[in-house]
Parts: sequence; structure tokens; C-alpha cells
Amino acid sequence: MNEGVSPPSTARASNLATPIITLLTDFGTQDSYVGAMKGVLASIAPRASVVDLTHGVAPQAITEGAFQLAAAYRFFPPGTVHVAVVDPGVGSRRAIVGVAVDGFHFVAPDNGVLGGVLRGRQPEFAVRIENPAYQLADVSKTFHGRDVLAPVAAHLANGVSLAELGPECAVRTAAPWPAATAAADGWQGTVLFSDHYGNCVTSLPATAAAVASTVVIDGMDALPLRDHYAQVEVGQALALVGSSGYLEIAVRDGNANQQLALAPGATVRLLSE
Amino acid sequence: MNEGVSPPSTARASNLATPIITLLTDFGTQDSYVGAMKGVLASIAPRASVVDLTHGVAPQAITEGAFQLAAAYRFFPPGTVHVAVVDPGVGSRRAIVGVAVDGFHFVAPDNGVLGGVLRGRQPEFAVRIENPAYQLADVSKTFHGRDVLAPVAAHLANGVSLAELGPECAVRTAAPWPAATAAADGWQGTVLFSDHYGNCVTSLPATAAAVASTVVIDGMDALPLRDHYAQVEVGQALALVGSSGYLEIAVRDGNANQQLALAPGATVRLLSE
Amino acid sequence: MNEGVSPPSTARASNLATPIITLLTDFGTQDSYVGAMKGVLASIAPRASVVDLTHGVAPQAITEGAFQLAAAYRFFPPGTVHVAVVDPGVGSRRAIVGVAVDGFHFVAPDNGVLGGVLRGRQPEFAVRIENPAYQLADVSKTFHGRDVLAPVAAHLANGVSLAELGPECAVRTAAPWPAATAAADGWQGTVLFSDHYGNCVTSLPATAAAVASTVVIDGMDALPLRDHYAQVEVGQALALVGSSGYLEIAVRDGNANQQLALAPGATVRLLSE
Repeated sequence: MNEGVSPPSTARASNLATPIITLLTDFGTQDSYVGAMKGVLASIAPRASVVDLTHGVAPQAITEGAFQLAAAYRFFPPGTVHVAVVDPGVGSRRAIVGVAVDGFHFVAPDNGVLGGVLRGRQPEFAVRIENPAYQLADVSKTFHGRDVLAPVAAHLANGVSLAELGPECAVRTAAPWPAATAAADGWQGTVLFSDHYGNCVTSLPATAAAVASTVVIDGMDALPLRDHYAQVEVGQALALVGSSGYLEIAVRDGNANQQLALAPGATVRLLSE
Repeated sequence: MNEGVSPPSTARASNLATPIITLLTDFGTQDSYVGAMKGVLASIAPRASVVDLTHGVAPQAITEGAFQLAAAYRFFPPGTVHVAVVDPGVGSRRAIVGVAVDGFHFVAPDNGVLGGVLRGRQPEFAVRIENPAYQLADVSKTFHGRDVLAPVAAHLANGVSLAELGPECAVRTAAPWPAATAAADGWQGTVLFSDHYGNCVTSLPATAAAVASTVVIDGMDALPLRDHYAQVEVGQALALVGSSGYLEIAVRDGNANQQLALAPGATVRLLSE
Repeated sequence: MNEGVSPPSTARASNLATPIITLLTDFGTQDSYVGAMKGVLASIAPRASVVDLTHGVAPQAITEGAFQLAAAYRFFPPGTVHVAVVDPGVGSRRAIVGVAVDGFHFVAPDNGVLGGVLRGRQPEFAVRIENPAYQLADVSKTFHGRDVLAPVAAHLANGVSLAELGPECAVRTAAPWPAATAAADGWQGTVLFSDHYGNCVTSLPATAAAVASTVVIDGMDALPLRDHYAQVEVGQALALVGSSGYLEIAVRDGNANQQLALAPGATVRLLSE
């Protein structure tokens, strides 16, 4: 790699007075897995501020992880290093990649978990993480979050450039969920997952909802499309564009997932007048 | 607002070398909602330290949120900005308020979630949050935590005064739970919620317990009133004044909520000799 | 205490540019108990960085707490102060101790929760926490995490030495789980607990697994011993050495705890060829 031609995408994170590293995992918070990662981060990048995006992604749920990362990353200042570990293939030959896009760095397995951020775009720059100098000396077979991704993120926060971490590569750019499709009378999408409140998040983007007036799910009455929860009665179901920019099915002050029994994959249709 | 007469209650949070912002929400930790709020905080107030009080308040449970906030806020250094987001009315016309009391700033919807802190006192100073200059440019209909409360808290941590955020107003000051009542033979209160251990927290304050010797709940044997768990046998039920200063019903090394089936609202009586 | 002969074990934590305090508890994250502890830490040691190891240890589960602490502590920089609060005996006469070992400070009840770190070794130096000058003025009967352990940890992070906190003492050094035993045909251990993924962590160390080829659990087919999950088919059970250095029973992309119904205490045998 010729340093003289490093693209701007390898901009160093150290332009933040306090470097920021975020963590999104499916580790849960029952064990000290996240704690061990933070120990590695503190040891290598003691000046960095570490922020949890979430550790509550369902085990091995790449779709949910990709969605949650896409919903939150852009609220951080440019230069932030985002680490995503939803990694059912840990220990196999799947690549771990470092990616520069939108002014941020991402470190993640190349399994689609960055697909919500990239949505089909190739990033400005991407490398396959290979250089052992930026990993722990003793890499386990089952915890690359601690032994590879955390040290790599810490070194990026310290100002190491992506190009030092491994060879340039292409990465998976597709969102790991089926795109919503246009039909004669509106749009059709699916339920992706259910959030903490039991709101069922769908693959239908705000742009599709903008021209619709009714939401139809097989076997249920049509749902009203509203702006916010308080526009229907307590206990009533509704659809609205959630804070992440996608249509959600909700029940005011209730749990739509439990009350409507909407499983991931259920079809949701947006009908225009 | 005449700056010359700003009351001391608008004291700026910036007197802390490192400003502190705490977060209490009902967002849970499954999604990246808390992460997105922290991104906004880091973008606007990069020097601030952000501390989670809890994100485990039950969805829309204003009583529990008010209790948890009251139990923890005073252990932080004066100047801390406390943000509370339990907000079933998000998107409706309910106000978001900024409040100065006890040397702290609070930012919260005006729905009773500050009632455990205020317990009937009007705060030293309070404003309705209106000034769009201190909110995100694009405010969603369903996530004011990210788009309004987080930026407001970050600006307060940066030294902006409450008076700059909107017009002075009155706020709800009542605790969102029924007060314990004195009876001829002692005090009567109710179960408010059950904590992580299954301890059932009641509305009976330590002062009421100080003159009592027995705790009576309908349909159960009288419970001994003790100082700490190890004063009864493993598996035995007891009552004690919890660390928040309210009577709790507990089972030593067990889960009172599950073993005694005490729902919120159950009546609890403290009998004096 | 003669300061001139202070052993190196009382080395002060303040040699870290930013002191680090970690927290491991069974408090859960539903309540503001952890938040109140962090308020105390921020009030006394405002420069310290506070890191959660986990608050998801099962209530009163000393074995699990000891294991989680042992798995994570050494990834932090020397000088870190680790606080562990799994404390069913709170309020009784059980001691709280301050311990120096491996370049770290630990503060915990003397109930075995440090046993995974110490594994039979006496620490370099240990004291019983007694000096009220380093505790909150008003110590509750049921929340020593907030009123004793947090202020002590904060003072250690500020550079106070262990010797100032109380008299030297011996501490419990045994791991709070039964040691694996060698048999004619291999090793025998037990299931200790199940992690977030449902992986069943055992007491069998990596050294025992190094010479084995098969794992046998009563009433089940023998399990293959592998390096990582992707070496078996999705849904298939396997055994592997987990990231903490102990044998685990897992199901690829599944939940071994639920699918195999392996309770803590179940016997697991490692057979050599």
C-alpha cells in the first residue's frame, strides 16, 4: 500500500479530541464478554470513550444487528469507530473487515451485518483484517470480538489507518433482509423483528408510507396509519413510521408482538387511496 | 427573560470539570435507541460523561420510573443533568420540561416522572422546552428522547442555562403513586412494583416503619420486620426498609414477587405494638 | 501500619492516567441500583472511568460471579480497581475486603466471589474494609455496594492505599465450585452455569481437554470435541474450549441449555483415546 495515495476514506479517527468507539453485539449482558472487550479497549486506547449501541441483538440475528446499527451510527460524530459483532461463523474462514464510509470506521465480520449501513453501496475503502500486529497475541477460536475486533478498533481510535490492518477487499453491501416491493396498489414488505416495546418493525421505508393511507396484514382488520401513538385509543393497533425511518406495527401502550402475534416474515401491505 | 435576575436555580452545569449526564428510560437494552441518544450527546457535548441510571423501567411505567429516579439522583455530584424518558404521550401536546432543583438539572416529559424527586415541592426553576435551536433539526414524531431531550441535556451540560430553552412554567410535582395513610393502629400503603430480586417495593416510608413491629398483608401470615435479609432463614419472607428508604417485602435468597404473588396495588399494613 | 514497609502490593491505582473502576454485580439493570453506585463513584472519583463487567450474574450466584470476574479481569490494564458485589450476606457480619493481586485491586465481600481470580493463592496483600472515613456517612443495612464498596473503590482509584482502609487479613481463596478430578480414563467435572447463548460452561479446564477426544454426559450420545462452532452442522451439539479457558457444551446456532436440559451440577466426562 502506497501511503502517498491513501484515499481520504482512510482518514484517521484521531481527529476527535476524545476518540469514540461504539459496540453492537449479540453477547447479551449476562456474562462478562462485553466487559472483557472493554478491558482490551481500555488497555490499548485508554483515551477512547466506549459507548454501547446495544448488546441485546438476538443470538446470531444478523438482520436485527444490521438494522440496529443502521438506525444509530449516524448520530455519532464523524471519526467514530463502530464495532459490530454478530458472528455465528466465528473461527471459520469468514473475513473480518474494516470499512470506511460516511466519515465513520466500521469493524465487523463480513456477513451482512454492515448491510443496513451500506444498502448496496461499496464503501469508500475496505480491508480484510489480517495484520497480527494489531490483534491480541493469543487469538482464541471463539471470541474474536475480544481478541481481534476490539484491538483493531482500539488501534483505529489511536490513529492507525485501515490500510495498515490488511489488504484492500470488497465487502458484502446488501441489507440482509428482502427489499420492499412496489405493487399496483401500493407496497409490500415484511416484519423484520420486534423491538423492546413489542413494536413490529417492517422493511417498508418511510417513502413508501408517504403515499399510503391504510396498512393491511392477512387475517387482520386494516390498520390506521398515524404519526404517533397518542392518535389512537389505548390498546388500539396502528401503523406508523418509526424513528428509524421504517414502518412499524404498534399497539398504543401495549405490545403488538404479543397481541397481534406477528412473526418475523409476516407480509405487510401499504395501500394508497 | 432578564438575565440580570436569573435565579440561582439556573446555575450552569459547567461547574463540573467533567459534566455528567444521566439517562433513565423505559427503552430497554435490546435495541439501539439508547445508543442513538448517546450519539447525539457525544456529538453536542463531547466532554460530558454519560451514565446509565437504568433503561429497564417497564414500558410506560411512570410510577416505577419516578421511583427509580428519586432513589438514585442525589448520589451524583451537584450540577449533574438527569434525563428521564418514560414518555407514553410522545408526539402529543404533552410538555417536555427542564427543571432545576436540589442543585441538579432534570429534563423529562411533564407526566409525573419527576414526582418522586419533587414530592409536592415546586422546583427552584422550570421551563417548557421550546427553543428549536437546542433540538435536532429534524424532530421525529416518536423519539423525542433522541431528538429533543438528548440535545437539550447536552446543551445544559455545555453550560446553556434553562432560561434559554423556553418559557418559565409550572410542573407536575406529585409523586405518581398513592401516599401511605395513617390509621389508628399504624400505617397503610401499597405495593408499587417488584425489583430485579423480586423484592416488592411499597409506598410506606422508613418513618412509618420506625414505629412498627409487624407487617400484615391480606391472606398471608404476618411478616417480621427486620434490618437485613440474613436475620431470617433462607426461604423465609420478611419486611425491611430498603436502600431507597421505603418498606420492601422480600424472601431471603428468594423472589418474593414470585413466591408471594404480590401484585402492584396490593395493600400492606404496618402495625405498631 | 508502617508506611516505610508498605509492600508493593499496595501499589496505588493512580499510576493510570485515567483510573479505571469496573463493576460486577447481581443487581440486574431493571432498577437504578447500579446508577446510584455510579453516582457515588462520580462524586468521589470524578476522573475515573467506570466500566461494567456485568450486572447479569444471577441473584446470589457466587459461583457465576466468581467465574465471570476471573474471565474478564486480566484484560484490563494493571492498576484497575475491580469491584464485585454478589452479596447475599449483606448486613450480616461477613467481611468486605480489599485485595491486591496480579497488579490489580479488588473490592468484594469475602464470600468466595474472588475465588476464581485467586484459585487457592493468597493475594499479595489484603485488608478488611473498616475505616469509616472511606465509606458514606450513612451506611444502609442492605446496600453496601453503594455505601461501602463504591466509595472504597473510588478512593482506591484516587490513590488511597489498601493499608489505609482497614487491618490486614486473610481472605477466602478457593474457587466456589468443585475442582475437576482426574480419573483412569480422563477427567470428570460439572456444569457450572449456562451463559447468554445457552452454552453450558463446565469446571473442566483447557489443559484437561487438550488430551481428550470425546465428551460424555450421562443419558446422551457422546459429543464431539471441536475448536469452534462452525465445525459441526447447524443444530448439532458439540463440546469446545470456550474463550474463558473452560470446556463448554454448545449447540451450533442453538441453545444447549434449552435443547439438552443440562442443569448446573450435571456431570461431564472427558475421555482420552
